[in-house]
Formats: sequence, C-alpha cells, structure tokens
Amino acid sequence: MNAIGVDVGGTKIAAAVVSPEGKILNEVRYPTQAVPPNRLVGTIAQAIMEVKDGFEVGGVCLAVPGLILAAENKVIFSPNLHEIEDIRLDEEMGDRTGLRVTVENDANAAAWGEFRYGAGADVDHQVFITLGTGVGGGVITHGVLLRGAQGAGGEMGHVTIDPKGPRCGCGNYGCLEALASGTAIQRLAREIANERSDSALGRLAIERQVLGEDVTRLAQEGDEAAISVLEETGMWLGIGLAGFVNIFNPEVIAVGGGAARAGELILGPARKEIQRRSRSPSRDLVETKEATLGPESGVLGAAGLARGEDGEYVLGPSKRVA
Amino acid sequence: MNAIGVDVGGTKIAAAVVSPEGKILNEVRYPTQAVPPNRLVGTIAQAIMEVKDGFEVGGVCLAVPGLILAAENKVIFSPNLHEIEDIRLDEEMGDRTGLRVTVENDANAAAWGEFRYGAGADVDHQVFITLGTGVGGGVITHGVLLRGAQGAGGEMGHVTIDPKGPRCGCGNYGCLEALASGTAIQRLAREIANERSDSALGRLAIERQVLGEDVTRLAQEGDEAAISVLEETGMWLGIGLAGFVNIFNPEVIAVGGGAARAGELILGPARKEIQRRSRSPSRDLVETKEATLGPESGVLGAAGLARGEDGEYVLGPSKRVA
Repeated sequence: MNAIGVDVGGTKIAAAVVSPEGKILNEVRYPTQAVPPNRLVGTIAQAIMEVKDGFEVGGVCLAVPGLILAAENKVIFSPNLHEIEDIRLDEEMGDRTGLRVTVENDANAAAWGEFRYGAGADVDHQVFITLGTGVGGGVITHGVLLRGAQGAGGEMGHVTIDPKGPRCGCGNYGCLEALASGTAIQRLAREIANERSDSALGRLAIERQVLGEDVTRLAQEGDEAAISVLEETGMWLGIGLAGFVNIFNPEVIAVGGGAARAGELILGPARKEIQRRSRSPSRDLVETKEATLGPESGVLGAAGLARGEDGEYVLGPSKRVA
Repeated sequence: MNAIGVDVGGTKIAAAVVSPEGKILNEVRYPTQAVPPNRLVGTIAQAIMEVKDGFEVGGVCLAVPGLILAAENKVIFSPNLHEIEDIRLDEEMGDRTGLRVTVENDANAAAWGEFRYGAGADVDHQVFITLGTGVGGGVITHGVLLRGAQGAGGEMGHVTIDPKGPRCGCGNYGCLEALASGTAIQRLAREIANERSDSALGRLAIERQVLGEDVTRLAQEGDEAAISVLEETGMWLGIGLAGFVNIFNPEVIAVGGGAARAGELILGPARKEIQRRSRSPSRDLVETKEATLGPESGVLGAAGLARGEDGEYVLGPSKRVA
C-alpha cells in the first residue's frame, strides 16, 4: 500500500503520498513561516489530509529536525519548531487524521530515502551525512536503520572531531558540525577572505556577506581562496567520515545537503582523509559519493518508515520488499 | 546445543565448551609462545578437539585480534599471528575438526560476551571498548552485532579523536588508541614523571620502566602525578565515548581490558567528558561501567557467535534464546 511521508522543516512543510516503488503520487507544500502561531499541529494534519486526497494510505511518518524520542513519537527539541516539542504527536495527529502517525529524525528519514531509492539503493550498509546549516546523519547497517535505544542515534554532527576546535551551536567545541557545515564554510570563508583580500573571495567579502553558495561558485570559477575554504572543509569532513568508516565498514557514504553541491571540491579532500585515517579492508571498499535524491529524500524516506495499524512498516522495513 | 569459543591471542590460545546458558563446561589453554613455527593452525585445531572431549558441540568460532574479513573467515592482518593470515580458516579448521568453524574479531567476540552474559546482559544497545596495549571495540545495536559489510566494523580504536594528536601504532595521528590505551598510559606516565620527579610516579620512573599497573597502583595510593595520568587518559577516552553515545544512543558502555582495572580513576573523568560532549536524551540514558567477564569474555562471546552446519547461530543470535 502507499504511505505518506511528511518533511517538517523550518522553511517548509512537504507531504507526499509515496508508492511502494518509491514514486511520489501526490505532494503538497506549505511555507512554515505562513503558519499562524499555535497552528503548527493543525497545519501538519491539514497537509496530511490534503495530500491523502483519494489515495489509499497505510500510515504516515513525520520527519522532524532536532532531538526525537522515537519510542514515544515525541520531539524533545527542535529549533524553530518549539510548538511541537514534548507532545505525543502520534496521538495528536492520529486523532486528527485517523491514520497511524509516527515521528522520525529528519536526517534518519533522509538516510532511509537514499538507502532505499538513492545513493545506497544497491547496498546494505550506508552512512548518510547531510551538510546544511547544521550537520545531520543517519546510518543503515545490515539493512536496518540505526536508531539506538531511544531513537536518538545517528547524531553524527555532534561527534567531536577536534577537541580544541571552534565552538559549535550545541555549546561544545570541535563537533563535526562546527567544522564541516554550511555555517563552518561561512566562518572559514570570512577568515580566509581577510587573509587574502586580493582574491575574488576577499573582494566579495568586502562588498557583502559571503554565503556558502558564493564560495562554491567562486571555487568553481577557479578562485584559489574559495577552493582552499572547501578543501579545508572537506578535510574536516573526511576526518569525521574516516571514523565512521572504521566504525561501520559501510559500502557507501552518501553526502547530501546544500554544501554537498560543491561536489568534488569538498568530496575530493574528504576522500583523501578517509584513505589516510581509515583502515583496510574498510577503506578499500567504501565509496564516498553525493546523495542523489536532493530535497525529496526526506518525504521518500519518511514514507518508507511509516507504520500501519499493525505496527509494521507500510512499505516494508527492507528495500527488498518494495 | 553447546558451542566452542576459541580465544586466539598473542599470549595464549584458550578454547572452551560453552552451554546455551553461558556456562563454561570445559576449557583448555595453550601458551601461544610454546607453539612451534608453522604449527599455529594445527595447535588451534588440537585445542578444539581436546576441549570437545565427549561434549556434543554445534559449531566453533575463533576470536582473533586484528583485521578480519568475516564473510570469508579470513584474517587479513594480525600482529604476532601472521601464520594464520590470508588462509580460509573455516576450510582449514573444518577439515581438521569436522566442525563448522567461523572467525570473528576478538573485540567483537568480547563485546558479544559482555552483551549476552556480562555488563550488557539486560540491554539491547551496548558499546564495548577494551583498553589493552591497543584499543578494540564492538557494538551491539538493536540486539545485533555491528559487523559492517565485510565484518571489519567496530574498529573504534582507530577513530581519530585529536587530528594533531600523537602517532598511533597504525601510522595515523590522534587515534583513540594513541590517547587512551595501555600504551598511551605508559607514554603519558613517562611525560608526567619527568615533569614531577618528586612524585611517587617520578621516583619510580627513575628506578625502572613504569607499567600501566604501576600507574593504577600509585594512583590508588593517592599519588597526584599518577592520578593525573589516569585523569587525562579518562578524558580522552570520554571524548571518544561521547561520540559513540551520539552515534549509537546506547544503554550501556562497557569498558574492559587491563587499563579498565583502574576503574573510577579512568571512568570518572570519562563520564564527565561524555556528559559534556554528548547530547540529550542519549547522555541522560547511557551508563558507563566496567565490563564484568574479565578475560572470559572472549571465549564466551566467541561461543555465542558460533554457527552450526545450517549456518544458524548455535546458541541463538539473540540473548533471549539462551
């Protein structure tokens, strides 16, 4: 049967009806900013009912950024989405939609999407990393999504990579997120622009704030300063990924999110560090590549993780069922 | 049915017949040094046949230190045990014993032993770390041993903790093993003994080489210099473990191996770092404690991972079967 995946983000709420083959049959989007105060739960329920339309649907899964207590279908902390914190979303949403609704961390959902339908479609062991404002992650090992005891596993962005490194948004120092996120790229771009004011990057930084996409564009145009920003970011990313290679012995590392659009400019240096810091036979096996589903990984993965009335996955827990 | 677990180490070969309840019914030990050249395979087979005696046995698993290609039952690299590298041990051993023989990394086997019969007996998610000359690790998540695509997963000792840290035996810099192993304790003890020559640690270092167990004993007697060696080691251990808490959301972290005998002198500082660097709800759940099985974890865990003629685990893949 079909399932509904909902990607609840800080900028948009996207809901999609997904077929067992991973085809999006219907989709609706609401800008999160347009949601009136205290109406977030109602708006998500409305998106579910609207997208459901005439489709037969076995269950719904919400992908939400932040800390999730999956066993209780609760969001513990979600930046910009405080309204849905600490409530039983399965009950709130179930009452409003008549469907079984579960909750999953957004990076876990995206990881599952890539695993079933994207970069990891042919493998059983995949590490997924998304480089956005923050860094999220999700791991599938032996075909199973690694959730951990409370569903809070896969917090790869807050693994310490350099104990004396820069402060992270989480309050700690030297997290992967502090060194290899969109935010980290902006910080590093400012530093390098200051040092190399004669570069294209340096000149842009005098005019206005440099964004991550500016760095990628300038690097693609050959600006050495911009290239070195992405090289250093890729190096830090690679230090983190090398650890994950040693831990998980994965076949594929899929890198998604906005910063991944820099492609080889980041992935090349990351691969070099993986080769340096991870061990055989894992390092010989692993393929580090860009995620392929783009922003649809969230709704696709969430739909894949939706459970029906009997508690079973609607689209099957493994991609072999689909 | 019973299974045989064999712990193939640099100092001893221990083989045990283990009951489904985790009771050791018979055990033999050979000192590895006494094995004549080119007789390691034969000696292991002999230990298996000797311990089997009159017992009904469903299968055998060898726990071997080093890099294992579990899918092929091959040891790729094992320090001090080069003789068994690159041969199909299932075939070699199967021919000699008439039993189904599989191969597992020794830390994975010990992790499984602690999970079924030791520190993790009551949980479904456990990270195990062994602090010996090197650092080994093994992870059980959702009740399943994390092997990865080739059975090379769980190489926690070579995760980079400090990219500019000291050189590790593996050739890289700043691995967990380089900062929180028995070897690391000896290195740090030398450094601190030099700085504090008036301490008990400093005085001992003038007389002779300081061993890890000396540091523990002096710290237990209250020597501040020795205490600070273990504090710093515990801090580095905690930085590594905090990452594993974020990644795995485990219920238990079990710390074994010789250096774990320092107990709270290492685990206390490690817990502090875990609290600082891992996130809720994972950090609130996790319990960091000493492993409980000591050196028997290897044979017990290996027996638990033995497979019979049908390819199924003899003692059941989950502890609930036992």
